[in-house]
Amino acid sequence: MINQAYKQMLQGKSVIRQLSEFATARGKEIGYENVFDYSLGNPSVPVPKEFNDGLIEMIGSKSSMELHGYSPSVGIPSVKDAIAESLNKRFGMNYTGNHIFPTTGAAGAIAHAVRCVTEPGDEVITFAPFFPEYFPYINGTGACLKVVPANTKDFQINFEKLDEMFNEKVAAVLVNTPNNPSGVVYSAETLTRLADYLNKKQEEYGHDIFLISDEPYREIVFDGIDAPYVSKFYDNTLSCYSYSKSLSLPGERIGYVAANPKCTDAELISAICAQISRGTGHNCPSSMMQYGVANVLDMTSDMAVYEKNMNILYDELTALGFEVVRPGGTFYIFPKALEDDAVAFCNKAKEYDLILVPSDSFGVPGYFRMAYCIDTEKVERSIPMLRKFVKECYGK
Amino acid sequence: MINQAYKQMLQGKSVIRQLSEFATARGKEIGYENVFDYSLGNPSVPVPKEFNDGLIEMIGSKSSMELHGYSPSVGIPSVKDAIAESLNKRFGMNYTGNHIFPTTGAAGAIAHAVRCVTEPGDEVITFAPFFPEYFPYINGTGACLKVVPANTKDFQINFEKLDEMFNEKVAAVLVNTPNNPSGVVYSAETLTRLADYLNKKQEEYGHDIFLISDEPYREIVFDGIDAPYVSKFYDNTLSCYSYSKSLSLPGERIGYVAANPKCTDAELISAICAQISRGTGHNCPSSMMQYGVANVLDMTSDMAVYEKNMNILYDELTALGFEVVRPGGTFYIFPKALEDDAVAFCNKAKEYDLILVPSDSFGVPGYFRMAYCIDTEKVERSIPMLRKFVKECYGK
Repeated sequence: MINQAYKQMLQGKSVIRQLSEFATARGKEIGYENVFDYSLGNPSVPVPKEFNDGLIEMIGSKSSMELHGYSPSVGIPSVKDAIAESLNKRFGMNYTGNHIFPTTGAAGAIAHAVRCVTEPGDEVITFAPFFPEYFPYINGTGACLKVVPANTKDFQINFEKLDEMFNEKVAAVLVNTPNNPSGVVYSAETLTRLADYLNKKQEEYGHDIFLISDEPYREIVFDGIDAPYVSKFYDNTLSCYSYSKSLSLPGERIGYVAANPKCTDAELISAICAQISRGTGHNCPSSMMQYGVANVLDMTSDMAVYEKNMNILYDELTALGFEVVRPGGTFYIFPKALEDDAVAFCNKAKEYDLILVPSDSFGVPGYFRMAYCIDTEKVERSIPMLRKFVKECYGK
Repeated sequence: MINQAYKQMLQGKSVIRQLSEFATARGKEIGYENVFDYSLGNPSVPVPKEFNDGLIEMIGSKSSMELHGYSPSVGIPSVKDAIAESLNKRFGMNYTGNHIFPTTGAAGAIAHAVRCVTEPGDEVITFAPFFPEYFPYINGTGACLKVVPANTKDFQINFEKLDEMFNEKVAAVLVNTPNNPSGVVYSAETLTRLADYLNKKQEEYGHDIFLISDEPYREIVFDGIDAPYVSKFYDNTLSCYSYSKSLSLPGERIGYVAANPKCTDAELISAICAQISRGTGHNCPSSMMQYGVANVLDMTSDMAVYEKNMNILYDELTALGFEVVRPGGTFYIFPKALEDDAVAFCNKAKEYDLILVPSDSFGVPGYFRMAYCIDTEKVERSIPMLRKFVKECYGK
């Protein structure tokens, strides 16, 4: 019979997707260029030319069996080695290829990392605001996601609430920095405090507690500052990465899990992930895409547009009286709505063809997310409409 | 803590992989050309040139966001439509794109199909001989794989044993035709009888019983005969396909689930599969690979070598007195060993640099598998060694 739990999931349509569909439909009425669609976190800049050039070059130079043949279930050795080397150079780590497990994007990375370090029934803690897909991602593994309420002052970690919720069943803590939806980058101070806390708890409970770091926005940071590399702070860290955002390759489903060389069973993580794959039907990302990203590991797309858009929006929102934490990265900004009910606020904005995502599904009521991975020209054109909306609806 | 069940799986090394590693190591000693490596089912012929040409053409003509952007979670509509149309034309079906769910190969297809039509604890029945990865594939979903003993006369279905094992908890039956490892193609008679049986059981138990058809070898058939299309015989069929073998693309992880338009909830299967993906980290195959296969749907690699190799081996094995069912497809042959203990038989063959896979892990004792997806020239060179082995060890 058809599985009832999965069938039931069809009822719970994603708010983000509903808004995106609304924007598309509205675009058909008035022209999509007139819809200020801040709904989707979809990269708006092209992949570096070198990536596509690399694909073409490999089609010419590699044999069919080499380019399109089976990847070993732990990933292609030369690709794993190259990723390790790039991370070592950039973040002062000492990975070997054996610590790297190529995955189908960050979703695939999290699916493996969580299964690797939890038993069914264990708890995984994350922090609001958070990416709503964490619920199906984590609960689909057999573990149970628990959400620590937000620290709305600066969207760093709410350590008091973390301590209230922590218990012996917590097997892993999941962080996302730079953060979707807040745009905030966890500071070195936050990460140090988190690491100290987890080390203390490991000792108290006498078992490993893993830090799973979801970092697809790692390279999208502003003001010329690097985001602290989470794994530097805590040994039992599994870093989950995707090239979706940094190389604008979301459809190619390519990323990795990187196991900190000092974590428990560090040399086995990759092999355990390959075992996990057998049950999930994952069996490695595309061979060609593994080779493809290995060609351009230290590159990113030209992402200057995101910082430019952020500055325009941050300045304007602040001028309009919004309470908003300045993003340190990503292509999201997360201001407080002008009324308590964020859904009502975003519904009113829709009347002005401003597509904003209410914060409720991110685990914080009363805020909204704008995904500004769109052309700067459109951001600029949206400003008069934003002013009009705020003035007419809230008298500001 | 590290998940103990997955860690435990590291102990159970695949026999096929061990033999393949032995062959590689032996190749370093005596030259790989002198090792008659029949261990791995890895396509030995290149992808059609049109596939690679198509990739290059798309890199030049499609925008980065179109080519490498997010696929909808149910797959790219134009690709789904094209697959449906090709299947309709070839097999007289009436699929629409909505019945097609693109997956990461057949492994991904089975992972989705089984989750879609079972509840945890349900039984899935398959037939020996079978692909040993079915155990992690099926048991990883929460269902439980049961194996019906082989009909060693012709490797069609053993219906008596099937009936003995059938019970109310059976939610799905998994068939693989053309079959790995036997090479046998299920006849129309077998499929008709199976469909009649399942229809009767559906009525008896008052619930759906799905037929999951794993058919990556569908296009590798001999004697100019087409393999019967399983879904034509039974409405509640989910066809699981991979382009790994027919297009020699095993590393690109691209295939699909095709839901029979008459099956229960046929219009929802694709959407339910997309929900399943959220928990497994699958999130669609590579966009570029979806477009890539859509360019060459009605093509295959030049697979004439497989039939040529089969004929050489079948004739020789028969002449040497082996009991062997003539394969109707695939690139496998599955003769009876010359002693009861297939492991002992294959170990002796290793002394002659003949790498044969004992049948125990395929669910039938006393046989062995040869994967003849290798150059014909090597098959021919292996014959004198096969004769020598049989003569010296078994006096034949």
